[in-house]
Amino acid sequence: MIDTSLKRNYTGENQAAALPEPSRRRLVRLMQILRQTKAERLTSAEIGGLVGCRDTLVRRDIGLAGFRGGVSNGYDTGALLSAVERALGAGDGAAIRRCCIVGLGRLGTALLDSSIFDGSGFAVVAGFDSSVNRTEILRSTFPLYPASRLEAAVAAERIEFAILSVPDREAQSVTERLSRCGIRGIVNFTAAAFAAPEGVRVENVSPVTALLTLAAGC
Amino acid sequence: MIDTSLKRNYTGENQAAALPEPSRRRLVRLMQILRQTKAERLTSAEIGGLVGCRDTLVRRDIGLAGFRGGVSNGYDTGALLSAVERALGAGDGAAIRRCCIVGLGRLGTALLDSSIFDGSGFAVVAGFDSSVNRTEILRSTFPLYPASRLEAAVAAERIEFAILSVPDREAQSVTERLSRCGIRGIVNFTAAAFAAPEGVRVENVSPVTALLTLAAGC
Repeated sequence: MIDTSLKRNYTGENQAAALPEPSRRRLVRLMQILRQTKAERLTSAEIGGLVGCRDTLVRRDIGLAGFRGGVSNGYDTGALLSAVERALGAGDGAAIRRCCIVGLGRLGTALLDSSIFDGSGFAVVAGFDSSVNRTEILRSTFPLYPASRLEAAVAAERIEFAILSVPDREAQSVTERLSRCGIRGIVNFTAAAFAAPEGVRVENVSPVTALLTLAAGC
Repeated sequence: MIDTSLKRNYTGENQAAALPEPSRRRLVRLMQILRQTKAERLTSAEIGGLVGCRDTLVRRDIGLAGFRGGVSNGYDTGALLSAVERALGAGDGAAIRRCCIVGLGRLGTALLDSSIFDGSGFAVVAGFDSSVNRTEILRSTFPLYPASRLEAAVAAERIEFAILSVPDREAQSVTERLSRCGIRGIVNFTAAAFAAPEGVRVENVSPVTALLTLAAGC
């Protein structure tokens, strides 16, 4: 059943935020699939195989995204991509979102390879580490700052999202600092469990968390 | 409402696999929180703040995990941890799960720092890369193999899980090879969208996917 009270809110900027969390997650995955596919048409069953869910859920999600063009031989991938991007606020007209990497240990340093973010709609524009030695020695295509300059640089560079790769024990305090300077979302590569401050969303992508989730389902 | 038809299936080994996907995901997060906390008691509201969900869901998940010890001043964290670990098949008696890293570029190489996995219940026991040069030069505490030896080494080392950090364009074919040699779960660090082969679970932890998910919700 589609919740029509939700659909009424789907206008303009806030449309994606109004989508149910699991649908939004699957639509993001669908957007990536559609950007990568060479197929001109995909059926809901084919999409379900790629997203990892049932075809009924695929059709529901696509309906929630406001797309009405499904026919028996599948969806036109170009038209569907436009609709999904629009629903997620990630279309052609969307501004590049500015991100930073906080914590330049082995994992954070690996993410300095900015080719990871090519064509993603995101650009890493700053890196931070508590070791001045490290920020001076490491090479990157964007500026690296000592952690003491976090607040100033996030504001000056208009950074919206942070990739958190500090040691686990620092995750909570750094998150609070990021929250105070207006960061809207954090990609958490640490295994630390911390409360997301009001107004900040957190995506947990620690390899340990991911392995635990896999193992629990096997 | 707790679905009692589900609860009837919660016996022995398959208990975690029978949990609804979102509950399993939150219980994994709860397990990590309980392993890290110094508090002797936590209320469902406090847990909700850390997991990022409402307290009613916390109580429901804990009920699904088979724990009945909640009282008005909160859960005993030690007893709750034991119950959650048991429900997820991750208790003290659980064997260390053996993993490999496939693709030793910048990100894969960063994960050679095995301290990431200390105390997690997982051990990385092998790494693979298509460049023999790379597998010979890189240093690690476990063996690194050329990709041609993937099938043989996964079988010989009894590896259950793979961390996938190959270039996006190779993700699908490597996943199919991993599936054929019996890998049960893949932590996908690539931004590639591919169909999970039958019997293989995939956790998508690409920083790009995580950023897209965050941005869609803001």
